[in-house]
Amino acid sequence: MSTVRLLSDDEVAPEALAVFNEIRAARNTDYVNNFWRALANDPAALRRTWDSLRDVMGPGVLDPKVKEMLYVAVSIVNGCEYCIRSHTAAARAKGVSTAELMELVAVVGMASETNRMATALQVPVDERFLTPPA
Amino acid sequence: MSTVRLLSDDEVAPEALAVFNEIRAARNTDYVNNFWRALANDPAALRRTWDSLRDVMGPGVLDPKVKEMLYVAVSIVNGCEYCIRSHTAAARAKGVSTAELMELVAVVGMASETNRMATALQVPVDERFLTPPA
Amino acid sequence: MSTVRLLSDDEVAPEALAVFNEIRAARNTDYVNNFWRALANDPAALRRTWDSLRDVMGPGVLDPKVKEMLYVAVSIVNGCEYCIRSHTAAARAKGVSTAELMELVAVVGMASETNRMATALQVPVDERFLTPPA
Amino acid sequence: MSTVRLLSDDEVAPEALAVFNEIRAARNTDYVNNFWRALANDPAALRRTWDSLRDVMGPGVLDPKVKEMLYVAVSIVNGCEYCIRSHTAAARAKGVSTAELMELVAVVGMASETNRMATALQVPVDERFLTPPA
Amino acid sequence: MSTVRLLSDDEVAPEALAVFNEIRAARNTDYVNNFWRALANDPAALRRTWDSLRDVMGPGVLDPKVKEMLYVAVSIVNGCEYCIRSHTAAARAKGVSTAELMELVAVVGMASETNRMATALQVPVDERFLTPPA
Amino acid sequence: MSTVRLLSDDEVAPEALAVFNEIRAARNTDYVNNFWRALANDPAALRRTWDSLRDVMGPGVLDPKVKEMLYVAVSIVNGCEYCIRSHTAAARAKGVSTAELMELVAVVGMASETNRMATALQVPVDERFLTPPA
Repeated sequence: MSTVRLLSDDEVAPEALAVFNEIRAARNTDYVNNFWRALANDPAALRRTWDSLRDVMGPGVLDPKVKEMLYVAVSIVNGCEYCIRSHTAAARAKGVSTAELMELVAVVGMASETNRMATALQVPVDERFLTPPA
Repeated sequence: MSTVRLLSDDEVAPEALAVFNEIRAARNTDYVNNFWRALANDPAALRRTWDSLRDVMGPGVLDPKVKEMLYVAVSIVNGCEYCIRSHTAAARAKGVSTAELMELVAVVGMASETNRMATALQVPVDERFLTPPA
Repeated sequence: MSTVRLLSDDEVAPEALAVFNEIRAARNTDYVNNFWRALANDPAALRRTWDSLRDVMGPGVLDPKVKEMLYVAVSIVNGCEYCIRSHTAAARAKGVSTAELMELVAVVGMASETNRMATALQVPVDERFLTPPA
Repeated sequence: MSTVRLLSDDEVAPEALAVFNEIRAARNTDYVNNFWRALANDPAALRRTWDSLRDVMGPGVLDPKVKEMLYVAVSIVNGCEYCIRSHTAAARAKGVSTAELMELVAVVGMASETNRMATALQVPVDERFLTPPA
Repeated sequence: MSTVRLLSDDEVAPEALAVFNEIRAARNTDYVNNFWRALANDPAALRRTWDSLRDVMGPGVLDPKVKEMLYVAVSIVNGCEYCIRSHTAAARAKGVSTAELMELVAVVGMASETNRMATALQVPVDERFLTPPA
Repeated sequence: MSTVRLLSDDEVAPEALAVFNEIRAARNTDYVNNFWRALANDPAALRRTWDSLRDVMGPGVLDPKVKEMLYVAVSIVNGCEYCIRSHTAAARAKGVSTAELMELVAVVGMASETNRMATALQVPVDERFLTPPA
């Protein structure tokens, strides 16, 4: 049970329905998932979030599969179950195999381990990692 | 200033020096960075962490550049400055361009935004994201 | 299922029952929610936590509704489902509308996005944000 | 030192300069802070982030001062120094007093304490906090 | 439902079964818990993680009960339900009483409160806390 | 530079000075560290926080050294530099050796690794970890 209503097509404002239909077209499916139906309670937030997500996750310099894996990794560390599940499903749909997913999980785990150790010991950044960016 | 001493080659136990030398060989440089010099206060932890890191970040099914980017993304969300800086440097060394780094940052930002929104609204996971794994 | 028992009025120590009754009086309801029933396993912690919460959330310089919204925002970022749900309910009871809640969620999302981007890029703090406090 | 260059007006792409100038106009100052100068390495991200921030933090149903306080609270929990400092400065500029800031900090602290306790004990959500949203 | 299959003894690779059997021997029980059955999808990760966990949590300079309590505390702050529950059970099995668990929870809560307050106010580290480590 | 002034004895309200003096007596030193001097901007918060900290960290069922180690572990995961440094110093003062600190760091790292892996894979909690608490 969400803290706001998940709005059906019949209940949303026309601007929200327009976003729903863009999502449908972009994803080539009639299905609009719960995240968007919750956000539809604020049509401006729905519009802004969808536009941003579409742009950020759209064509760029990184491979779409890589971007989806980054999304999953971030969602794990932020501890968002909804996002882990929806983006793992999206990663699968983009061709990520179980072996690739397991390797991603190993990297996320290892990075989290060394992150905590470096923070624990307050290791000072080596001079060479601070050289001015090009 | 770290909370434990950063040990020089002269100060470490022989088992720790052996790890230092493996790091040098693997990275083709004489430089051993501060993280390992802090960990050398516990030679068993140094050995275990280096072995694990080498294995996790070594050859697998994912591209080394992708793995390094995942490492950076995780370090950002865990808020570890040392790790952000050292692994961003490593990513650069593996060929990640400024454009790729900026796109990674955009994905990390966008994922964090939607992670918080989904958690805030306690959006229930769609049935279709729960289908049994293959 | 909690990791300790949720204690009924019959089971708690007299000092814990006294706190339960203060909660009832302060909230004008007979209902004592699960958080307090779990804490009652440590009557001193129950007393200390209730006293602190009552003082922090009681009359001050900020509006009670604003304080409740801050509580919800923090709970989202800390990823505590119990707290998100109980304090969203409390915010509703204090008059927070769905539109206000959605705007809060938008701010939490946007802040989380820029938080990660600033951390990712290790943006140095501008001199003007460091001017000595009045 | 940031991980990418902080771009001066002379160095940015024309689309980025246009955003800089919108920031100047909106804030009634010639000063463009470091966050935007780092983001300018990705003009599309700069545009998207500024547009979203301007919309989210612009007129809505919540008081601008309240929104700035929510921004500060989120930045604290996400552990972003840059954001804590820049948004605390912004909150001050919007009239937040030291007494209000201290009360905000007390709420953030108290919420974080109870968040961890509820998570620690895995307290189940009370039925009444799950009633369907209106 | 996990995002990968929980593998039964019949389904795992021989290297994974060997790890399962080591877990059984070390814990003196036939039961292998779900975490390991999920990790078995990547036998190398299963081996590495079990070996590390066994070494880290094995005999050292700290009491095993203390180490288990540290594990629980970390799991609370990282917000991992699986880990909170499995390591709270392990702590119980090592003799941690309800009173000890409640005191641990009080410390975790109090630390989280002051952590947020110190971060919020950007309190500079006192010179005396920076004296060089021995 | 903190976001509020660090108040000297001459500047604080009488109620705050009384707390400073209690801290001095309890710790057997004239030195009052920066955290309390920042909190003194809100004498009620200073009183409440000191009273709670003194009670939580005072005599109980757990060893004081163990409690200080739990405090350090929590501060690491919450990413609070001030708290890591001040409580590591406190742990040292209570007799925690470098070997013990390094083992603590190993546990924090290992727990963080498995926390992320269990969350990543959404491993369901084993029935046996859910048995009703005594």
